[in-house]
Amino acid sequence: MLDQIHLLAAVTVLGVLEQGYFFLQVIYARRAFGISPPKISGPPEFERIFRAQVNSSEYFPIFLALLWQAGLFFHQGLAAALGLLYLYARYCYFMGYRASSSERLTPIYFSSGVLWILIAASALGILHFFLSHYVGLNILQLLRA
Amino acid sequence: MLDQIHLLAAVTVLGVLEQGYFFLQVIYARRAFGISPPKISGPPEFERIFRAQVNSSEYFPIFLALLWQAGLFFHQGLAAALGLLYLYARYCYFMGYRASSSERLTPIYFSSGVLWILIAASALGILHFFLSHYVGLNILQLLRA
Amino acid sequence: MLDQIHLLAAVTVLGVLEQGYFFLQVIYARRAFGISPPKISGPPEFERIFRAQVNSSEYFPIFLALLWQAGLFFHQGLAAALGLLYLYARYCYFMGYRASSSERLTPIYFSSGVLWILIAASALGILHFFLSHYVGLNILQLLRA
Repeated sequence: MLDQIHLLAAVTVLGVLEQGYFFLQVIYARRAFGISPPKISGPPEFERIFRAQVNSSEYFPIFLALLWQAGLFFHQGLAAALGLLYLYARYCYFMGYRASSSERLTPIYFSSGVLWILIAASALGILHFFLSHYVGLNILQLLRA
Repeated sequence: MLDQIHLLAAVTVLGVLEQGYFFLQVIYARRAFGISPPKISGPPEFERIFRAQVNSSEYFPIFLALLWQAGLFFHQGLAAALGLLYLYARYCYFMGYRASSSERLTPIYFSSGVLWILIAASALGILHFFLSHYVGLNILQLLRA
Repeated sequence: MLDQIHLLAAVTVLGVLEQGYFFLQVIYARRAFGISPPKISGPPEFERIFRAQVNSSEYFPIFLALLWQAGLFFHQGLAAALGLLYLYARYCYFMGYRASSSERLTPIYFSSGVLWILIAASALGILHFFLSHYVGLNILQLLRA
């Protein structure tokens, strides 16, 4: 069973490490700008780093949910590769947002694009399973025939 | 194996699409009220939409965790049906909160109720597994006898 | 299959109950301090409780991701025990933060330590699987020889 999820598990742990890196950046920014918890407002430089972390945290469960559905129902290797691409796009987003609000845009569009591909892969894989499980229709065999 | 999780996977992807819809509404509200990131405060109309998205994001991992435990340990079909009910309640919550703070209350109570049923189903299913696995006690067989 | 995840499932449901408890504390604090949604700012006492819940929510998907990878690829019992330790540390963090900002520090360091052990267990377990799956190298057998 583990051989069907080991690539997904590896990307999941990498994703956790990236989230940890973002959390650390907020801690460093709090020290640099002298903004102690529970305060969350401050100069735009601080708020951009803070919002970059919050946005990445909000998307993390969504990313994991899609990574695993796409990997289980479509193709593990492809899902893991898209996962790595997403984590790279998130890193660019964080670094871009830290520099200026406009520099977050290109990587956020890119990461959204990756998520849409993961949604399509998940939906296709699940649809394929439904059709072969309930209707007895095997699309892949039809395409090959 | 996939036939034990395909309904859960389908509800998970639907849930992701709903979260995506909520994120889009915040983007539209930012444009409509002229509130650029990283700012998160503004007129109550904007803050209600923003908080509705944040609250839904905070509950999303909790929802997924319960959906999957209830589906794996109690009954997949029932868990998936409760999952659809939860997603519907979340949609009503978002639309209600957008209109006024008080209109979020009925759907949030309803969605909490659905989560409590998922918690009960998960706990019962896991307890049943523990009893049959460690004590050799099969409750369902006892009830049938 | 379920006997490989039942301890992880039990800790997951306990974690959800803890998150529910934190959400309730914010609702009680909103009433006590008269801060109606969508407002999120108020006296430091309220903001500490609010931020304690937000921080716990942001870490919840990270915790679950690590709990399950460590449990599937390293050792279910150890992962579940570390999971209980994490949930206890989170409870101390919430209670500490409610009292004062500085009292959140010891438990947050402790909970981070537990997460790092879960990361190490996950990474080791996945690495072990990669080596035995792709290279045919069984580290455990080597250590025993």
